[in-house]
Amino acid sequence: MSENRKWVLARRPLTEPSVEDFRLETAPLPEQLAPGDVLCRTHYLSLDPYMRWRMNDAKSYARPVGLGEVMVGTTVGEVVRSEAPGFAAGDLVVGAGGWQDYAVLPAAGLRKVDATAAPLSTALGALGMPGFTAYAGLMKIGQPKAGETVVVAAATGPVGAMVGQLARLQGCRTVAIAGGPEKCAYALNTLKFDAALDHRDPALKQKLADACPQGIDVYFENVGGLVWDAVLPLLNDFARIPVCGLISQYNLGNAADGDTPMTALMRDVLVKRLLLRGFIVTDFVAHRDEFISYATPLVADGTLQVREDIVDGMEKAPEAFIGLLQGRNFGKLIVKFT
Amino acid sequence: MSENRKWVLARRPLTEPSVEDFRLETAPLPEQLAPGDVLCRTHYLSLDPYMRWRMNDAKSYARPVGLGEVMVGTTVGEVVRSEAPGFAAGDLVVGAGGWQDYAVLPAAGLRKVDATAAPLSTALGALGMPGFTAYAGLMKIGQPKAGETVVVAAATGPVGAMVGQLARLQGCRTVAIAGGPEKCAYALNTLKFDAALDHRDPALKQKLADACPQGIDVYFENVGGLVWDAVLPLLNDFARIPVCGLISQYNLGNAADGDTPMTALMRDVLVKRLLLRGFIVTDFVAHRDEFISYATPLVADGTLQVREDIVDGMEKAPEAFIGLLQGRNFGKLIVKFT
Repeated sequence: MSENRKWVLARRPLTEPSVEDFRLETAPLPEQLAPGDVLCRTHYLSLDPYMRWRMNDAKSYARPVGLGEVMVGTTVGEVVRSEAPGFAAGDLVVGAGGWQDYAVLPAAGLRKVDATAAPLSTALGALGMPGFTAYAGLMKIGQPKAGETVVVAAATGPVGAMVGQLARLQGCRTVAIAGGPEKCAYALNTLKFDAALDHRDPALKQKLADACPQGIDVYFENVGGLVWDAVLPLLNDFARIPVCGLISQYNLGNAADGDTPMTALMRDVLVKRLLLRGFIVTDFVAHRDEFISYATPLVADGTLQVREDIVDGMEKAPEAFIGLLQGRNFGKLIVKFT
Repeated sequence: MSENRKWVLARRPLTEPSVEDFRLETAPLPEQLAPGDVLCRTHYLSLDPYMRWRMNDAKSYARPVGLGEVMVGTTVGEVVRSEAPGFAAGDLVVGAGGWQDYAVLPAAGLRKVDATAAPLSTALGALGMPGFTAYAGLMKIGQPKAGETVVVAAATGPVGAMVGQLARLQGCRTVAIAGGPEKCAYALNTLKFDAALDHRDPALKQKLADACPQGIDVYFENVGGLVWDAVLPLLNDFARIPVCGLISQYNLGNAADGDTPMTALMRDVLVKRLLLRGFIVTDFVAHRDEFISYATPLVADGTLQVREDIVDGMEKAPEAFIGLLQGRNFGKLIVKFT
């Protein structure tokens, strides 16, 4: 009880990690805590794909784990000593305890959990980061409406399972993509997806089209690669694609070589949380009056400069139009009729 | 005055249109109007890049112009005869008059314009579809904040010029990309962009990086191709990219052959008005309580199924993690400490 076992990063993997990339060390427990800190004994540690990126020495949305440092991870633990007001021995907390028996944690980063409301381990899954990831991506970005079709990659994983069930509760048709017959059966029978497809099926493209006769309105992306290729042609107008993970690409390491522009784009969309959204102006017709009243006085007083390239005579329309496509005009091209 | 000259589509161009793709025809004016219709004499016709797509016989967001049909286009015209309540001869209106001297138009699709508030032709440019496109894309999708960097492709075009000026009025640093020294000078001196770059410059990538020392927060995309390649590595976290046009690709015709996955994606983003948005869950931390109170009772009563793959013993963490990346677990992977 006076010793802490901890897994540290021993070596940075280039592609797939191996057990030699980790090293188990022991260290004594601290004698004293700083004010505001608590000492927690780990009950449960969550393992998640994002950890693979933290093993790389590359810019991502979080800093890499240093060599010799404890592997990061979210834990449910029990407070055994506290120097923080509001926390006492016996409290159960979620925090960034890492891959170790005991962690000294600032109380400010902890969240208490109620073990009587749901099983303690669900604070790391359905009610933890994966569940909340599913909820935020689906409800806040995907915004599914009843009757729409929602396709979920990695559909039996902790995120995907929640996405599919939440989408069903919204009244959507839900289509699972999962790896192998056992997971597909679980998706259909337990998670109640309307259809489930094996991503290893060579006929995935056609089967996905068959499973989505009304096209796809929301695709929850956490895989990348071949599944995305199958989804793309089936997307409906105004489809939403929350991009939450790209697990098929994590083992590419820093992935500078062999990157296609598409994988580079999707990685940037994820890591930088980019927003891509196509539009045509009529989608925003409700804002037209707002625009006209804002811009008219600014055009009239010259705050907004306006340049027009006015072609005189309707008989010149085709020639002017061809010039437009070649970039020959300078200013808004307008044909003046006489 | 009793004859209508009209440009009809004579032939579908495969790549760049030529004047032989259009044919000028004449027809008598209608003797009688149906109730609700007006006859308008065209004053100004707007020519716009989208017309190129309407010349293709391909699914887009609007139906193609038929062979022998009048080319479509927005016009400012004067009502000369009216069978519609609220419209009288002499009224000035914006509508879909097309490439012809006279058009019979349902009054329901017309918008009256006030020629005293701003010059009549601006109803087709700065205060018309291009201006409103700029406003909707920049303000509603791009959402620029003071101090951010906004890059605008085709920056001296009718859309880009408005985007740049509106972004400057929001307090942004604005960077223009335009074709040739004359347009770049206009962007700097008249439109007051902070920097202007020639898209034909072989050093565009480096010069764009130099012009955006704080990275790019909003890229207003209406070009595609090489400019997008230069922008991509400079995008900041949470950058917004309204995709409004891809003029560099319009002349590819139906573009089935030779399409790269990236050009196909960008065309779909535009035509289907897709939304791509990367995220990590902490971006949504303000919604965490909402999620926990929604999901906890649903987990507790089994409405939401939860599957956990619990590995017993912290010494198994690396092996379990490696299995996770290989998809060997089934359920939320959690290490139980003893």
